[in-house]
Amino acid sequence: NKSPMAAGVVTARPRRVVVVRAEGQGINLDIRKTEEKVVDSVVVTELSKPLTAYCRCWRSGTFPLCDGSHVKHNKATGDNVGPLLLKKQ
Amino acid sequence: NKSPMAAGVVTARPRRVVVVRAEGQGINLDIRKTEEKVVDSVVVTELSKPLTAYCRCWRSGTFPLCDGSHVKHNKATGDNVGPLLLKKQ
Ligand code: FES
Ligand code: FES
Repeated sequence: NKSPMAAGVVTARPRRVVVVRAEGQGINLDIRKTEEKVVDSVVVTELSKPLTAYCRCWRSGTFPLCDGSHVKHNKATGDNVGPLLLKKQ
Repeated sequence: NKSPMAAGVVTARPRRVVVVRAEGQGINLDIRKTEEKVVDSVVVTELSKPLTAYCRCWRSGTFPLCDGSHVKHNKATGDNVGPLLLKKQ
């Protein structure tokens, strides 16, 4: 094998690019942490109001309902999360 | 005022305890990041299946639907999040 230097080429070891995702932290800090998995069910025929907002930010004081806490979370973190709206029609 | 040392008492400046919450990171890493706030609506009368799972972990490849990705997220982080289940009855 010829040395790369013979051709005047400077080589380096191939760099391995590692993409680190922000997966170290959970997203639910406080809600029902004794449960192995927090799952909620809504029987949609039993919804009383025309519109009900369900939390997806895990910061609501009325979880599983949305109480608007996503606004503070988004401001504090630069995030863009919001609720799931259930509409009767 | 008497000096505390006169009574043999060792005092210190009152410590201010600061509770740091893991709020630096958002919870939505990838989904529709061009939207200021990701809100979805479901007209419940239009649900086709008896049971539909909606994602609350922000890791689903089929967001706003749940595709089971919360399992991987929970394992990776020790979190305990899960979907919202909409049931027709
Ligand atoms: S309070 Fe969590 S989405 Fe609104
Ligand atoms: S994939 Fe997000 S809750 Fe299931």
